[in-house]
Amino acid sequence: MKLICNKDLLVQYINIVNKAVSNRTTLPILECILLTANEKGFILTGNDLELGIKTAAIEAEILEMGEIAIEARIFNEIVRRLNGEEVTISTDDKNAVTIISGSSEFSIMGQGGEDFPDLPEVLQDQAYTLKQNDLRNMIRQTIFSIAQDGAKPVLTGELFEFNEEFIHIVSVDGYRISYRKNNLLSSYGKKDVIVPGKTLSELHKILSQAEEDLVSVFVTDKHILFDLGTAIMVSRLIDGKFIRYEQSFSEDFKTEVLVEKNALIQSLERASLVSRDNRKTPVRFQMKTKTMEITAKSDMGTAFEEISAEIEGEEISIAFNPRYFIEALRSIDDEKVKIHFTASLSPCTILPVEGDAFKYLILPLRM
Amino acid sequence: MKLICNKDLLVQYINIVNKAVSNRTTLPILECILLTANEKGFILTGNDLELGIKTAAIEAEILEMGEIAIEARIFNEIVRRLNGEEVTISTDDKNAVTIISGSSEFSIMGQGGEDFPDLPEVLQDQAYTLKQNDLRNMIRQTIFSIAQDGAKPVLTGELFEFNEEFIHIVSVDGYRISYRKNNLLSSYGKKDVIVPGKTLSELHKILSQAEEDLVSVFVTDKHILFDLGTAIMVSRLIDGKFIRYEQSFSEDFKTEVLVEKNALIQSLERASLVSRDNRKTPVRFQMKTKTMEITAKSDMGTAFEEISAEIEGEEISIAFNPRYFIEALRSIDDEKVKIHFTASLSPCTILPVEGDAFKYLILPLRM
Repeated sequence: MKLICNKDLLVQYINIVNKAVSNRTTLPILECILLTANEKGFILTGNDLELGIKTAAIEAEILEMGEIAIEARIFNEIVRRLNGEEVTISTDDKNAVTIISGSSEFSIMGQGGEDFPDLPEVLQDQAYTLKQNDLRNMIRQTIFSIAQDGAKPVLTGELFEFNEEFIHIVSVDGYRISYRKNNLLSSYGKKDVIVPGKTLSELHKILSQAEEDLVSVFVTDKHILFDLGTAIMVSRLIDGKFIRYEQSFSEDFKTEVLVEKNALIQSLERASLVSRDNRKTPVRFQMKTKTMEITAKSDMGTAFEEISAEIEGEEISIAFNPRYFIEALRSIDDEKVKIHFTASLSPCTILPVEGDAFKYLILPLRM
Repeated sequence: MKLICNKDLLVQYINIVNKAVSNRTTLPILECILLTANEKGFILTGNDLELGIKTAAIEAEILEMGEIAIEARIFNEIVRRLNGEEVTISTDDKNAVTIISGSSEFSIMGQGGEDFPDLPEVLQDQAYTLKQNDLRNMIRQTIFSIAQDGAKPVLTGELFEFNEEFIHIVSVDGYRISYRKNNLLSSYGKKDVIVPGKTLSELHKILSQAEEDLVSVFVTDKHILFDLGTAIMVSRLIDGKFIRYEQSFSEDFKTEVLVEKNALIQSLERASLVSRDNRKTPVRFQMKTKTMEITAKSDMGTAFEEISAEIEGEEISIAFNPRYFIEALRSIDDEKVKIHFTASLSPCTILPVEGDAFKYLILPLRM
């Protein structure tokens, strides 16, 4: 293989495929990036067997076709530090790779590309399409309430519910539910799949924030494929049945609160400071006529906060893990939120003031 | 005690005294900040017994004099998150502290100020004076080559050599020497002391970068006091005799190299990438007529770099730990440096192109 390409462009694409390179050292080839130069062009691939990423063809002058697997860490560090505008990459028949640019010449050992695992085949026929930035936001706004332990494997992923018009993304960790809804620009009918949290956290990093960039999503029984234009990401799905989250959200409520989101976050953050154990001390909400009072008490001391709010209904008193409340509120971009309370021992729901783009459910703590 | 002061001002001063608050939990009072309101004003003190910091009087309305020690971590976190412009701090006779600001009211337990250790007394009579920013730079430019292990305790600090005109700051870790020299604006004669590395690293964080701010330094047999105007810092000194570093610097050399500092740093960083063991693989310098060649070789591969340089003298070949070279070069602000080599197994010296503001000595490695 021999080719010449732009250095900055190569750095960008390495950063993309790096998200699918394994950090574990069980199978050394999985710590590599596969470089392929063939009739389709110059392509990079990363694959840790759970998650694979393959770039689109990178602009390059291909002088000799071929393929080679190079340890991702060293390849990345060398390329991003090169001081030439262009990089020449060539291999010999013993898999030695020479990288030349500016004042530098590196020679490092690669591995034969034939040992690199293929990405799973996913038929790219009919697609679910949405804006990359919308998907990016939906992931950010739900991923924090994925279950951290593996007791219920389905809860370590997020439910993707597709229908003719919408996509819903849902995460549940046993104490709370995060739900986001967004329009689809194209659909091919109803489908529910569970996508691993690791996949979504890596996907979030490479989704574009540019308003015009779209992502096409293709689903099979075992896999999901995201086509970002610059690259495709393929992930296995989590097998199993997600919990029926809809029935946890009740339409009934006794008290409705309209409140400034940032004021509430800051009060909760301050109140949780009197907790030594990583914010596990409950904070108590007391709804008054025109204010919410937030109090916390531990062996360290007490905190009292008063926030003005529009409150309708009963003067309920209820306690929460402040971290759950803060994380949900932080994920919301709106300035104001609506909160529905039913009783001291019933979950509360955080909603948009208008519309149905999100709902967050949080279980209360017994005081 | 009861007082009212500006929140942002209080945050600034807490950040200063925090540098002397202990993180260890052996003696709980040392994890506190002492608040004192007396006829001199409102003053904060931190003291971990090695290092103490006392602020100048902070602008405040003192309604009742007194003193209280408050756990630094929680006090800092509460105050910086308050949403009022002013903070009211008051204590009762059971050492409960009430902090009120904006929409918040906190009550936390403090400890009696009488248990807080006094700072050592240091006579502040005649001073060594220099610009804070100059001292700040001198520390940054030498502290990286302090010995990390305690085998020779004097080498875990830096030598401060004062004379009538100059201050020299020197650190030595057995493989290299870092030396910086600066003018004094006032002096009271020759004095050599060894200041602990921990003190200097904290002092570096609070020294001002403003061109006009001066620091006055006072030295006794056991202690050094830095008066920054906003606060004084008192530290114990390290007892013992520093090594006689001057004799390691030789005036003789066989080869003189003038080279762009950044080009050399970048080449060394790239060359050290072929080392798996945290840049411990030696890099080899080969001086040619108009270029330096830098090469490195490990089981990972080889790196070759070529840098243009002005070279006079013998075509010497010599090897170094690249990290030592990179750290010395990074601490230098000049664009070009002069390097003197004597022989493959003799130390090299990095010098300014003009003047004598610094010298760095690095021992070579056997190839």
